[in-house]
Amino acid sequence: MFEQVLAAKERLKGYANVTPVMTSRTLNRRVKADVYFKCENFQRIGAFKFRGAFNAISQLSKSQSSCGVVTFSSGNHAQAVALVGQMLNVKTVIVMPNNAPATKRAATEEYGATVVEYDLEKTIREAVATALEIEHGYTMIPPFDHPDVIAGQGTAALELIEEVGDLDMLLVPCGGGGLLSGSAVAAKGMSPNCRTIGIEPELADDATRSFRTKKLHRVKNPPTIADGTRTASLGKITFPLVLEYVDDMKTVSEDAIIDAVQFLFYRMKLVVEPSGVLGLAALMCGAVIPEGRVGIILSGGNIDSATMTSILRS
Amino acid sequence: MFEQVLAAKERLKGYANVTPVMTSRTLNRRVKADVYFKCENFQRIGAFKFRGAFNAISQLSKSQSSCGVVTFSSGNHAQAVALVGQMLNVKTVIVMPNNAPATKRAATEEYGATVVEYDLEKTIREAVATALEIEHGYTMIPPFDHPDVIAGQGTAALELIEEVGDLDMLLVPCGGGGLLSGSAVAAKGMSPNCRTIGIEPELADDATRSFRTKKLHRVKNPPTIADGTRTASLGKITFPLVLEYVDDMKTVSEDAIIDAVQFLFYRMKLVVEPSGVLGLAALMCGAVIPEGRVGIILSGGNIDSATMTSILRS
Repeated sequence: MFEQVLAAKERLKGYANVTPVMTSRTLNRRVKADVYFKCENFQRIGAFKFRGAFNAISQLSKSQSSCGVVTFSSGNHAQAVALVGQMLNVKTVIVMPNNAPATKRAATEEYGATVVEYDLEKTIREAVATALEIEHGYTMIPPFDHPDVIAGQGTAALELIEEVGDLDMLLVPCGGGGLLSGSAVAAKGMSPNCRTIGIEPELADDATRSFRTKKLHRVKNPPTIADGTRTASLGKITFPLVLEYVDDMKTVSEDAIIDAVQFLFYRMKLVVEPSGVLGLAALMCGAVIPEGRVGIILSGGNIDSATMTSILRS
Repeated sequence: MFEQVLAAKERLKGYANVTPVMTSRTLNRRVKADVYFKCENFQRIGAFKFRGAFNAISQLSKSQSSCGVVTFSSGNHAQAVALVGQMLNVKTVIVMPNNAPATKRAATEEYGATVVEYDLEKTIREAVATALEIEHGYTMIPPFDHPDVIAGQGTAALELIEEVGDLDMLLVPCGGGGLLSGSAVAAKGMSPNCRTIGIEPELADDATRSFRTKKLHRVKNPPTIADGTRTASLGKITFPLVLEYVDDMKTVSEDAIIDAVQFLFYRMKLVVEPSGVLGLAALMCGAVIPEGRVGIILSGGNIDSATMTSILRS
């Protein structure tokens, strides 16, 4: 699997941003460690999702490319697939709930994607996307449970360790586990003694429970501010990878998430969405006790006005 | 004067951050130019002011250092002087109005500075600082009108041009003119064909009028959101430098400033204060028509919750 991350890195060259690594003296003093932030909020479309989408879509055969791809997402993965489709001249169809924010729909359509709505009450998004896949011959590019998507997401951790050297610890947000499992594979390959720890909101702790019990647990629309982690559960591919490669899972409160967004805003001048700050939240609230050299993936920066306003006023 | 900027760069080595240069494909497409942002919001204390303060204070004689320094500022220069004093073990006294926000006062005191309040209605800050200078033998480190401060501020533009190469145009915010004149000197020295343009809010257009008429104009507490540019006028040293080195001055509306803060927040994931976005505002609103390769100094990122909240809701 590590070879697939290395191969993904080659594919992404010249297409994805090699995002900067940032540090904070204030934070390092406070937590008594050397913390390196991989800033995927500066990735194209504002989140790591571009990596996986590009790695998957760029490997399609000619006939697959000419037919098009389909996915289900109203978030960063939707924009990533739409942008990659535009770049590689591949038709993209995005299945979104009929209550998706108009701005998210517009952002996706701006890249030339076709948006298909479904009724959140009456059906599930995977079913709608699968029907389109079968009817039109589209290739499905799921948001996380796909080896090429996972390998692509792993390139952020790969770049981080290439740039700063061996890490003792790597903290990664966990939703469906694509970024987490890809990062863990990259970390084990690059820096074998590095412990990869997945971080979830307490309110969406399915992966933590799945990790502890080795049985798949689920959550349903958990009310966490970290909207990128509201995914129901780990996937068929990500769950075994998480069990094999990830060293531990921890959870953080909503207050810890808000504190971390504020710290990044006020002290580091970075706009990071709630799902993106989970690693820092774990460090700041003591859920993870840092050791030595700590990498943190800041996974994305797509936050709307209402959410940021409420966080800044907290 | 250019030699003084080069010397300042050597002095700052290992103390100031060499801040990153960022770009935006979206912006480049929109304005049909290549725009390079020098991100001084990532400088120590969150603004370029660290450069000038360090360059000035690090050149003091032993007896000056052991006696201490004084300045007048409630903003970024106050924090810069306080931090440099802490780093170089020099006593710092900061004169602030009695209505300065508690957070700004606390931030300065955290670095070990002594804050002296004055009554905004009854006296002016320069007079209070000068009295302390005379009484205690402190060395005055003014916020802009000082050759070492100006030379230090010029190092941001120097680094930018060193990193990205020749520029056709450099856009710089203007308050008291320290950053602007230092940047213009650096640009002329590094990239002789580069036109340096100073940008002010329409509501605080004293430097633009001074530049046009070659006579010093003033403003009094202008009600612009760009609080770093509320300075009454250019200084005795900065005014002649602006006349000699700056190619043009332009103004932008409050709405243009708000648009630019929003663009940096949503599209570039950068937290930049209103005074810091003036260059981008000028480009986006058409006050400056871009040519070729354009440098923009994003001068700082210290923005409070109320200001950012009101901008995000606009």
